[in-house]
Amino acid sequence: MIVIMKVNASQEAIDKVQVEIEKLSYSTHLIEGATRTVIGVLGKKPLRGKQHLQSLPEVSDVLEISTPYKLASREWKPKDTIVTVGPARIGGDHVSVMAGPCSIESYEQMKTVGEAVKAAGGHLLRGGAFKPRTSPYSFQGLGVEGLKIINQVGKEVGLPTVVEVTDTETLDVTTEYVDMLQIGTRNMQNFTLLKAIARQGKPILLKRGMSATVKETILAAEYILNEGNDQVVLCERGIRTFVDHTRNTLDVSAIPAFHRLSHLPVIVDPSHAAGKRHKVLPLALAGVAAGAQGIMVEVHPNPEVALSDGPQQLVPEDFLDLVERVRVVAKAVGKELD
Amino acid sequence: MIVIMKVNASQEAIDKVQVEIEKLSYSTHLIEGATRTVIGVLGKKPLRGKQHLQSLPEVSDVLEISTPYKLASREWKPKDTIVTVGPARIGGDHVSVMAGPCSIESYEQMKTVGEAVKAAGGHLLRGGAFKPRTSPYSFQGLGVEGLKIINQVGKEVGLPTVVEVTDTETLDVTTEYVDMLQIGTRNMQNFTLLKAIARQGKPILLKRGMSATVKETILAAEYILNEGNDQVVLCERGIRTFVDHTRNTLDVSAIPAFHRLSHLPVIVDPSHAAGKRHKVLPLALAGVAAGAQGIMVEVHPNPEVALSDGPQQLVPEDFLDLVERVRVVAKAVGKELD
Amino acid sequence: MIVIMKVNASQEAIDKVQVEIEKLSYSTHLIEGATRTVIGVLGKKPLRGKQHLQSLPEVSDVLEISTPYKLASREWKPKDTIVTVGPARIGGDHVSVMAGPCSIESYEQMKTVGEAVKAAGGHLLRGGAFKPRTSPYSFQGLGVEGLKIINQVGKEVGLPTVVEVTDTETLDVTTEYVDMLQIGTRNMQNFTLLKAIARQGKPILLKRGMSATVKETILAAEYILNEGNDQVVLCERGIRTFVDHTRNTLDVSAIPAFHRLSHLPVIVDPSHAAGKRHKVLPLALAGVAAGAQGIMVEVHPNPEVALSDGPQQLVPEDFLDLVERVRVVAKAVGKELD
Amino acid sequence: MIVIMKVNASQEAIDKVQVEIEKLSYSTHLIEGATRTVIGVLGKKPLRGKQHLQSLPEVSDVLEISTPYKLASREWKPKDTIVTVGPARIGGDHVSVMAGPCSIESYEQMKTVGEAVKAAGGHLLRGGAFKPRTSPYSFQGLGVEGLKIINQVGKEVGLPTVVEVTDTETLDVTTEYVDMLQIGTRNMQNFTLLKAIARQGKPILLKRGMSATVKETILAAEYILNEGNDQVVLCERGIRTFVDHTRNTLDVSAIPAFHRLSHLPVIVDPSHAAGKRHKVLPLALAGVAAGAQGIMVEVHPNPEVALSDGPQQLVPEDFLDLVERVRVVAKAVGKELD
Repeated sequence: MIVIMKVNASQEAIDKVQVEIEKLSYSTHLIEGATRTVIGVLGKKPLRGKQHLQSLPEVSDVLEISTPYKLASREWKPKDTIVTVGPARIGGDHVSVMAGPCSIESYEQMKTVGEAVKAAGGHLLRGGAFKPRTSPYSFQGLGVEGLKIINQVGKEVGLPTVVEVTDTETLDVTTEYVDMLQIGTRNMQNFTLLKAIARQGKPILLKRGMSATVKETILAAEYILNEGNDQVVLCERGIRTFVDHTRNTLDVSAIPAFHRLSHLPVIVDPSHAAGKRHKVLPLALAGVAAGAQGIMVEVHPNPEVALSDGPQQLVPEDFLDLVERVRVVAKAVGKELD
Repeated sequence: MIVIMKVNASQEAIDKVQVEIEKLSYSTHLIEGATRTVIGVLGKKPLRGKQHLQSLPEVSDVLEISTPYKLASREWKPKDTIVTVGPARIGGDHVSVMAGPCSIESYEQMKTVGEAVKAAGGHLLRGGAFKPRTSPYSFQGLGVEGLKIINQVGKEVGLPTVVEVTDTETLDVTTEYVDMLQIGTRNMQNFTLLKAIARQGKPILLKRGMSATVKETILAAEYILNEGNDQVVLCERGIRTFVDHTRNTLDVSAIPAFHRLSHLPVIVDPSHAAGKRHKVLPLALAGVAAGAQGIMVEVHPNPEVALSDGPQQLVPEDFLDLVERVRVVAKAVGKELD
Repeated sequence: MIVIMKVNASQEAIDKVQVEIEKLSYSTHLIEGATRTVIGVLGKKPLRGKQHLQSLPEVSDVLEISTPYKLASREWKPKDTIVTVGPARIGGDHVSVMAGPCSIESYEQMKTVGEAVKAAGGHLLRGGAFKPRTSPYSFQGLGVEGLKIINQVGKEVGLPTVVEVTDTETLDVTTEYVDMLQIGTRNMQNFTLLKAIARQGKPILLKRGMSATVKETILAAEYILNEGNDQVVLCERGIRTFVDHTRNTLDVSAIPAFHRLSHLPVIVDPSHAAGKRHKVLPLALAGVAAGAQGIMVEVHPNPEVALSDGPQQLVPEDFLDLVERVRVVAKAVGKELD
Repeated sequence: MIVIMKVNASQEAIDKVQVEIEKLSYSTHLIEGATRTVIGVLGKKPLRGKQHLQSLPEVSDVLEISTPYKLASREWKPKDTIVTVGPARIGGDHVSVMAGPCSIESYEQMKTVGEAVKAAGGHLLRGGAFKPRTSPYSFQGLGVEGLKIINQVGKEVGLPTVVEVTDTETLDVTTEYVDMLQIGTRNMQNFTLLKAIARQGKPILLKRGMSATVKETILAAEYILNEGNDQVVLCERGIRTFVDHTRNTLDVSAIPAFHRLSHLPVIVDPSHAAGKRHKVLPLALAGVAAGAQGIMVEVHPNPEVALSDGPQQLVPEDFLDLVERVRVVAKAVGKELD
């Protein structure tokens, strides 16, 4: 941390800052510039007291120079983490494919999709059982019934499953039926849920909040790792911007940013970013080209009658085509899908 | 709802859209323009099937022309709602003042602040007991101990209290000790929590999500009203933008927007928007000038040693000065603080 | 400037940075922290070489700790600048009112508006002669004919005039007819125009770019001051955000930010931010309450037939009412409109 | 266009809207819904009067259902436009590579880069002669001297050239020396410059404004096409968002959006979006994977001493590597670089 004093700060104010830093058990180092004094804060302990120092008299600014996370940081663990979900391995040079409908609607629907995902070479089967919906009047999911369906279909087609958890009330039952637990974009900073889900010990798919920075996303992962669970996959799914041609703006630059700062695997969700079917393929390819280690895509046997997010779900044939193309681009950037 | 077909859409596609609309039990009305056909969807029932229609062949777009909320809408209840918290009445031509520290730290701290808030003419005492923090290594609040402190101080100084609820686990105990329950910006779309909190029957302060639109915020309130609880106050607390001179951008234009669309009271939180002390006063005045029916301000006896958000908390004297100025501006716009 | 080396940077890399800093004629100061080395860059000269240092091996980041502008900075000139346009004085504790139609359409229209602005106690008459329009098919303004009209009406009603300049081609003729020259939001970083307009020696109204930071806006003003013209008024007119209930988001927090960083007067334009008539009044009041030293409002005798921006223009009676209310709020915050 | 009346609008207001639409020489079509009346506006003429209709009494909203541009629209010209710059052909299934330094600094620098670009298989040589800089104290470019250098080097290495034009004053001289003229992000809505540059008759590279929507960008191109020049290439170069890990957020979803709405070629500029060297490669690959028909990359023989934008410029060897990888990804998505 570095404390920047105001231009011509008084000696008294400078002394006060030094005393306060020492109270925090750090040592200090003064640089007297031509117009300002700058005070370095030295010590090995995790960073504390930034806000306190910022509020002292004649302090202009306090800058952090170390990262606020540790367990999720690549500085502390340079090697890529590989997350294992049953037979699926996510991370490294592998491109994983997770696919399934937005909402689980029936056994027949899931079975059709599950077979399509398996046939295309996909690795995980996804589906929503408890749906967080902007309006209270929208379809809210099949609940436990949905969990049972995806569990059964997953076993029948031979794919591990991933389902979003929306609250602690349904966490235990979801954990019982599902192989990987997902935190949705609206819950990325639901810290109670993050801690509770971490303790289940299952692998976790953590979606970036739609207005979260890369650093805040890694800090959300840090909440999970801090509970002793390091099986976390980050997912870029689009951010909120002024743009009106798409639902959310897929931030492909977050992929190399995550890779540089953290050892955790990173996948993209082109379906939620796009909001419309014709953008899913280009965004999936862009994500993989930028270094994503997987994609999560929505597939529905008949999107025209889907109970949620119809416009962005692919039919099985289009999904098959998408996986073929992703495979080619993955290879072009030195990765492998199979 | 209006369905806009693509330029030169086929008769077959147009027929298909009409059939699908009728399946949803609406009637249709065709407009054949020079280059496009547009289909009106008529009916009194709540809107359904937008996404379905959007996914039909040769449909260019589907536009909503009615609002997706009802209970929170001013179209359905033109008169302002007044929310009552003990002796405090929030809404109408009254400007309410809610104040207190970011975190409850001790009885002494709360007592000092509580007396200052009361002396300044404030109406509610706030304080955080369970703190949602970006980093797992930051101070997370005193918990139930904090609830007991604010409960006691509230009684001693004669002010009703408002505390944020962060999860369903701590909801019952918070309800036991507190007069008004707050939903924070990160939980605005935590729908499980919205429904659970609504059922407690206590008045609710709902903060706008930092990347939520005005419409999404009203829909979050609709979740609460739909559970039979209409004692909801909306709070504008700043949105996330590209701007770097402030923590969040206080969207004062949301205040007249909320008033036009909804009958619920609207207050502003200048402290969280500003992030820095010197911006709290101008933002509080701006909010009230734009029509806010209250302010929520952070006050701390000694911000330099605050355990969270020190830089944005006011000392009691500055808070007293702020209330005086807010009173004058309130009067200038035809409202009253006392 | 402070150069932050990567964790465990080599001595060779550290030496290299020091050599490069010295080549730029600064001196250096080393802080060896527990995990990183940080190098202070000391010297009185204007900042140079940040990007160069950032690109050196094993450098993690380079932080600026001084401001990149000087002439526009309050650190260099603590006292408020007052800008004089004929009898009007903009800045300090005065609230100036600039008003007029979006586009100058005819002598009759301008005369009606000019008399209304004068009657309401306004200080400057505005009007657009050359209109920057998003579409090439929209009305582009009356051009020089418009300049002659506003010039004549200004003289007849006794108000100085302000008109936007959109290019260097029309700069001389505009300067001939107009008292204050305006730089529009789309031209805030048209540096050629900034320099050319500065040299005309007339007072300048500089609108913040719709995606410009506060710092970038002050740097745009610095371009003008650097040409020897310090008669610059800054104008906050709304920024582009994800919000969809308003055309642009009026950033009231920019007002105290500008005041803290610069001595130049700051006004707000609620009309362009709002985009709709019913939001103009609350935004004007909010701006003044937050410390703006003036407002610029669009007025049209008959907005229903306006050739541009009809929905946001006020009729004269509503404008009169707005000025009355602004006067009251101005007084409430210790300023004066008359 | 569709006019949506308020709930329970009066017959008088509805009649008034119909009269006004007919005055604009459109015909009308009424839909009387359960709670609202909606009025269709029919006619083949370009859209006019939206703002006027929006300002009529009891009108809730006016929605456009046709596009405001025509010449740039794919609805009017379904086939891809190919832009020709000397031997280079931009558009269709070809991926073009434009590269060179941010600023032209010397003949030696340009020669080194020009040879590297040619050797890597690049198609155009870029370089800045007049630099738009945020600060008046930053390096502003070599000017005409720079134009002469890039002209000479372009001839020597056999590559057509592209240089940004920042104002009309330097337009003629730039046109004299350069093969393709670039409009920078800050000038995308400098309409005077758009029209003047269009009339030079040379091919134009139009960069998206950093806060421009896709539609506004196409409208800027429409200004050029409307002057009779259809040799326009669009360039996505990153938009301004809340994100802080990158300079601008490359909006890859804009690429399929542009392709769907317009027949003009689309390229990406990963260098300006990234701001840092290590993100240039992933963003270039992502852009091409998403359908971009070219890339523009900054290359400098010695970025450590570059006079502008050092941190984002590639050294020739890294550039060569980048082109190799782009070639592979281009092939993977059915395009060709050579």
